[in-house]
Amino acid sequence: MFSGAQFSLYPMTDEFVPAILRGVAALDAYKDALRRDTDDLSTLLVGPSDTVVRALRDSFIATASGGGHVVMSATLSRGCPGESDDPICAAPALIIPADDADLVTAAVGRFDPGAPSGLDARAQISLYPLGGEGHMARIGACIDFLKAVGVYDKPKHFCSKLRGDASVLFAAIERSFIDFAPAQAHVVLSLTVSVGSPSLR
Amino acid sequence: MFSGAQFSLYPMTDEFVPAILRGVAALDAYKDALRRDTDDLSTLLVGPSDTVVRALRDSFIATASGGGHVVMSATLSRGCPGESDDPICAAPALIIPADDADLVTAAVGRFDPGAPSGLDARAQISLYPLGGEGHMARIGACIDFLKAVGVYDKPKHFCSKLRGDASVLFAAIERSFIDFAPAQAHVVLSLTVSVGSPSLR
Repeated sequence: MFSGAQFSLYPMTDEFVPAILRGVAALDAYKDALRRDTDDLSTLLVGPSDTVVRALRDSFIATASGGGHVVMSATLSRGCPGESDDPICAAPALIIPADDADLVTAAVGRFDPGAPSGLDARAQISLYPLGGEGHMARIGACIDFLKAVGVYDKPKHFCSKLRGDASVLFAAIERSFIDFAPAQAHVVLSLTVSVGSPSLR
Repeated sequence: MFSGAQFSLYPMTDEFVPAILRGVAALDAYKDALRRDTDDLSTLLVGPSDTVVRALRDSFIATASGGGHVVMSATLSRGCPGESDDPICAAPALIIPADDADLVTAAVGRFDPGAPSGLDARAQISLYPLGGEGHMARIGACIDFLKAVGVYDKPKHFCSKLRGDASVLFAAIERSFIDFAPAQAHVVLSLTVSVGSPSLR
């Protein structure tokens, strides 16, 4: 099992370098749980799926708390057959019910929004269960979950738009990534999270 | 058949609004070929797969030519079973050889880098052929194509890093999106294109 993310922070300001570095520094709290590597395009995180999403949340909040228009773009991946097993990725949270009919209920039961960040955010996510039939049903179940926990804003072509406190959105993203395909499946989740867009004023 | 993209431009400057609007204005040249819709997170393009990628190229170049650090993030999708057929998406370019063994050669033959933009770019892309077995072989063929046309920089976890003139990279992305799965398949391609990152100085 291999699990992780490539993510980028885009602060729309002349002072983007310190804003990005603030987001990367927030990852230091996860240095025992996640491996990381940064280049000019993105930062790689490798580790358990739930921990990776929480690290993304903290990184986004650290950068976005400085104000202005800030976007995070990320690709999360687990179970890619092209990646070697890695012990750092062991994820006890990946316990998926055997019966697909229970996916939404199970995800709602595990959803833990935690403490709000105070950041009013918009997001859009796409879930890609790869390597088999039935991916549309899994995507549909994930959308039902997003509606059930109150973060679903509206459908867009190719993705679902979400709205809410940034921490609550990441809590919903964590469950979306983990709960809608078997533990050993190859699953990708693509996300964009934004605060401070002038289009909303 | 439904085909299109959701894309966002991230100019890392206090003057990000006019820079984004310059990229959106470049789409006016495609107003008869593509439908579009912009909200606070992204701009939707709907139309033939090849035209969509060329519009992304022109939009990125229009914004990036202003200088500074500019990133485009996009999700391209075709053949999603959840979308209705749309006549505007008719794409004669989608003629895929029946024999998988010919995929790389066919894509190299169709690759047309066109005139260079003069912008030295870095990119990373991920191809997701959905809804069936054998997706890893298709991804592998796409990587072989990227190497054959000289834009492949190196592997990263979850994506491939590309390097070259921005126009040449988009020409390679066009073939990557179109040529590695059947015409009616559900295919997603995720991309990040960047110029001017201070990490490269």
